[in-house]
Amino acid sequence: MSDSSLYDIVIIGAGPVGLLLSVCLSRWGYKVRHIDNRPVPTATGRADGIQPRSIEILKNLGLKSGIMAHKPARVFEVAFWDPAPEGKIVRTGTWASCPDFLDGRYPYTALLHQGLIERVLIEDIQKNGTVVQRPWTITRFETNHANPDYPVEVDLKNLDSNVVDTVRTKYLFSGEGARSFVREQLGVQIRHKDPISHVWGVMDGVVRTNFPDIKMKCTIHSDHGSIMVIPRENNMCRLYIQIASSTDPDFDPRKTATVAEVQAAAKKIFAPYYVSWDRVEWYSVYPIGQGIADKYTLDHRVFMGGDVCHTHSPKAGQGMNTAFHDAINLAWKLHLVESGFANRNVLETYEVERKFIAETLLDFDNKYAALFSQRIPSAAEVSDAHAGSESQKDNPFVEMFKANCEFTSGFGVAYKSNIFNHSLEHPFQHPLVITDSEKLRPGRIIPPSDVTRVVDANVVHLENEIPFNGAFRLFIFGGQKASPKKGGHKALADLASGLSRPDSFYSRFSCKNSTRDTHYDSDNPHSKFFSIALTLAAKRPEIEISNLPELFQAYSGRIYADDRRQMKALDAKFGAHAKVGLTGDEGAVVVVRPDGHVGVAIRLVEGQGTVEALEGYFKGFTTPSSFVGSESGLGGGKAHVRAQL
Amino acid sequence: MSDSSLYDIVIIGAGPVGLLLSVCLSRWGYKVRHIDNRPVPTATGRADGIQPRSIEILKNLGLKSGIMAHKPARVFEVAFWDPAPEGKIVRTGTWASCPDFLDGRYPYTALLHQGLIERVLIEDIQKNGTVVQRPWTITRFETNHANPDYPVEVDLKNLDSNVVDTVRTKYLFSGEGARSFVREQLGVQIRHKDPISHVWGVMDGVVRTNFPDIKMKCTIHSDHGSIMVIPRENNMCRLYIQIASSTDPDFDPRKTATVAEVQAAAKKIFAPYYVSWDRVEWYSVYPIGQGIADKYTLDHRVFMGGDVCHTHSPKAGQGMNTAFHDAINLAWKLHLVESGFANRNVLETYEVERKFIAETLLDFDNKYAALFSQRIPSAAEVSDAHAGSESQKDNPFVEMFKANCEFTSGFGVAYKSNIFNHSLEHPFQHPLVITDSEKLRPGRIIPPSDVTRVVDANVVHLENEIPFNGAFRLFIFGGQKASPKKGGHKALADLASGLSRPDSFYSRFSCKNSTRDTHYDSDNPHSKFFSIALTLAAKRPEIEISNLPELFQAYSGRIYADDRRQMKALDAKFGAHAKVGLTGDEGAVVVVRPDGHVGVAIRLVEGQGTVEALEGYFKGFTTPSSFVGSESGLGGGKAHVRAQL
Repeated sequence: MSDSSLYDIVIIGAGPVGLLLSVCLSRWGYKVRHIDNRPVPTATGRADGIQPRSIEILKNLGLKSGIMAHKPARVFEVAFWDPAPEGKIVRTGTWASCPDFLDGRYPYTALLHQGLIERVLIEDIQKNGTVVQRPWTITRFETNHANPDYPVEVDLKNLDSNVVDTVRTKYLFSGEGARSFVREQLGVQIRHKDPISHVWGVMDGVVRTNFPDIKMKCTIHSDHGSIMVIPRENNMCRLYIQIASSTDPDFDPRKTATVAEVQAAAKKIFAPYYVSWDRVEWYSVYPIGQGIADKYTLDHRVFMGGDVCHTHSPKAGQGMNTAFHDAINLAWKLHLVESGFANRNVLETYEVERKFIAETLLDFDNKYAALFSQRIPSAAEVSDAHAGSESQKDNPFVEMFKANCEFTSGFGVAYKSNIFNHSLEHPFQHPLVITDSEKLRPGRIIPPSDVTRVVDANVVHLENEIPFNGAFRLFIFGGQKASPKKGGHKALADLASGLSRPDSFYSRFSCKNSTRDTHYDSDNPHSKFFSIALTLAAKRPEIEISNLPELFQAYSGRIYADDRRQMKALDAKFGAHAKVGLTGDEGAVVVVRPDGHVGVAIRLVEGQGTVEALEGYFKGFTTPSSFVGSESGLGGGKAHVRAQL
Repeated sequence: MSDSSLYDIVIIGAGPVGLLLSVCLSRWGYKVRHIDNRPVPTATGRADGIQPRSIEILKNLGLKSGIMAHKPARVFEVAFWDPAPEGKIVRTGTWASCPDFLDGRYPYTALLHQGLIERVLIEDIQKNGTVVQRPWTITRFETNHANPDYPVEVDLKNLDSNVVDTVRTKYLFSGEGARSFVREQLGVQIRHKDPISHVWGVMDGVVRTNFPDIKMKCTIHSDHGSIMVIPRENNMCRLYIQIASSTDPDFDPRKTATVAEVQAAAKKIFAPYYVSWDRVEWYSVYPIGQGIADKYTLDHRVFMGGDVCHTHSPKAGQGMNTAFHDAINLAWKLHLVESGFANRNVLETYEVERKFIAETLLDFDNKYAALFSQRIPSAAEVSDAHAGSESQKDNPFVEMFKANCEFTSGFGVAYKSNIFNHSLEHPFQHPLVITDSEKLRPGRIIPPSDVTRVVDANVVHLENEIPFNGAFRLFIFGGQKASPKKGGHKALADLASGLSRPDSFYSRFSCKNSTRDTHYDSDNPHSKFFSIALTLAAKRPEIEISNLPELFQAYSGRIYADDRRQMKALDAKFGAHAKVGLTGDEGAVVVVRPDGHVGVAIRLVEGQGTVEALEGYFKGFTTPSSFVGSESGLGGGKAHVRAQL
């Protein structure tokens, strides 16, 4: 087989999950074969909700501004409407999409049709040398470990010419959607958590109405049925109507309804408010059940994600967002294995982490209707001012409501303890590991904060400063003891010298500097696998980068002054420190996974304890081969070359 | 002469001033002939600094995101470097570009080359049906009032074909730059405030250096000369070097220097830091003196703006910004005259307002060097926490420094009292006019604040909610007395009923609703000349738009809840009210000119006093013809048709 038929990965399907995986791997230099069986990209309709946490992810990928340029609608609140006397409807409550206690950087859902989102991803993929081929489909695949470098053979068929192309690849990924050839071939079963399935009608259009909440997300229950209203870009509005349910006595999963029928139903539900359509942009009827795949992979060579693995009702707007998380979760793990940094068995964590979230999503989907038929808690009840008080913890309803808000906005993606996410069950323990922080919880994201970048005095979002580059992020908080004013950088100096030792985890995976120009690279000056952001408890003019240990000077663009007042920590002298729970003298090194989730937090102390603890954590999953020999020693040459594939 | 040779305006020059004027008038439906004598748009280099206030203006025009997509450098601070012993240089201070006390929404200067900015404006112009023709020049023009509709005749010559096109126009505008044919033909003199002229070298490129402040704006004085450093997009950096001055004994205004000479000089100045160039993108040497045109127009038909009217050193980064202000100042005045709303004599205020600012700029330019050779005041000295205290007012140095910061960031554009900008000298006086507010100062912009938009619960920037649409803005603050919680909207109801009376200034300029669909138009539901934004002292869920007076319901997308905590008014219960100085019970109607500057602020009271005061203010410059007869009465038909030309 010629080299031109060898790929690092073959991606089937150019929906959100396939595209985002393709974005990451194309950027990192992998050879990607990407196909989709539709002749053209999505023109309109389909998924449309980007949740608060997904907006952060897109921002971290540098894709947010391209998507926001399409001027999505922004949903800050959800309104609940219920039947009222005389056949009327009345608003019974509203609730924030991303309540204040979640402390989201972008506390809203952005709504625009999937085609516009896909367009931004496709442009990025093309810029990085990958083409999404259409219309192509997959007709056969087989994993054969006799060929260890490219174990998967795949037949791809061009649906225009019917020509079949046989290729070999290291990985095959199916992002085919709910009807997946790959999943079927693997014999992976879909398990239904809720046996009830529904037929939904969904319609995008420009409506003319005097209904006051047409610009908000609404759930309307009326004596004439129920509807969900979602505002959209270009003055549009999406309506979801349930057309049939498997609990109906005469249920027919192929039951359908015309546009006119749905509009007539909507008019009755909206009454006494009037509603009419200037135009309908998209309309679809589809049956959907709740389901979850038993496995996301069988052999850690053929993977699946997105709707292939989990389907559920559109009500909570989670589909595309879950797909995004699937994609980035797999992307960095494949990258770290293929570039020689991590052991192959870390790929097992993809299914473990993502399937757990899908299960949570389905549980949530089940509870959703039940929850909102109850009362909505008042803002005071859910206020974070008393987050820790007993009275609130005693209120299970409020706790459940908060958990659900957290989940739908994407901040509830909390991976459980494993080799990446430290806990007291982790095989490595060290006295300097922070285990009791309410702010730095392994498996969850790091709290947002504003800081001043020293090199250019720009006010920036610390949590977003290191881009999604496939590297582990070391967020170092200097602590008040290490403030330049107090003359002390001893702990920082010790950290730098420990990291700089040739046999440290940091140095072992470094590139030979001679092989590339790092003058303008503040993210990976030493290694493709580590990015550092150093935040000092000081005002910007007090910080002189040239006085810092040499290791940090290479990160000159990633050194920050903790001198901005934070709305969520108004009383703190050093707000960014306070927001990660560092209110005393000490600093910390917070290890954040490439996808933004905290791995472990370690106290920053004088001596070599901090580096020791870091070493132990990374030893848990980095390749032993990198720990020995000259080939991958100081320069990490092999790892680097492979990452540049 | 055929209709195809008749224009509303002929614009000469496609630099910042010509382009922005063209953007506005093309959007508002005017027939624009726009030419430029360069064969292609600016490719790189030239002006590059967009000041904080200009960013707000571009945001208000909907142009900011297109410009920001080019990822300009952001300058938050300026650093001052001075000679130190042993031929070294040392940082002697830094100061914010837009200090906190200015309360700018975007407290930084955005830096990118003029070509990228022009591209965004040119695309907008084209979208609205105007084409910038190149290479064309103007060869003759003449104003002949015998043809009152199109009094100006202009000869335009295509520089490719040498064909001359003679056209007639209502207005001619010269944005030709410092060497202006129009200005010369009119015999308008340039007056030099400072007789000294300089030769400047300017170079854009990617530098490699260990100079720590290369990402900040710096003024470096060394024993080997002086240089100004300005960071730019794409890792570039601009250097300004003064090559010659008319105070030199052997001054030659044609003195020049090669790239290599400037680089060699820069290396000496930067020492002991190293500096080298990866590439040079643009280089230019130009002589420049300080000058200001005696007149901006002679007959109020032929106008000039931008560098035609004022030239000065590039040090303070004011050129393009002053041009932007010139353009928008003229745009709305031409629009209101041509659409039949304002008396023709309001055009006189263009020269009065803009020439005053140019004079201030030149004064400032003179003082700039002197100022920064003195010490920089400390942040505590300039803190706004004591803005009103006597101790600070006693410190003329701090006062001058603040005034200069305010001026360079663009917030010092403070127009003096005239028919638009109320003061105690204004011909119309009324007891309800607010004359003593420190927050609402006629001639200056309105303070920024965050509010919640009621219709969709979006958190928005109130000051930017009404776009630059050529309409007067009525920012209505309901006041605490009118809070829905207190059951009271009496003052608002009286205001609405007063505005709705058929003979009110508001109704007289309204369009016949039957002529257009206002269902989706929250900015001009009643009239092209007025936009309303109503802010209520209440939380969003307390506000029910359908309970408001009918007039305001038409502005459903412009009704706001003053329920967001403002960083600059943390203790205020109603922060947006507090930020405009309304701390008591009463509300106000703040009349803001189409360009965002406050015209007059009037207390909101029960009864007809508020409308009476508004009436008196608008009577000062609106056309009498609109006050009579059925033609322009209720429907304002004629005015509307003319605005749609």
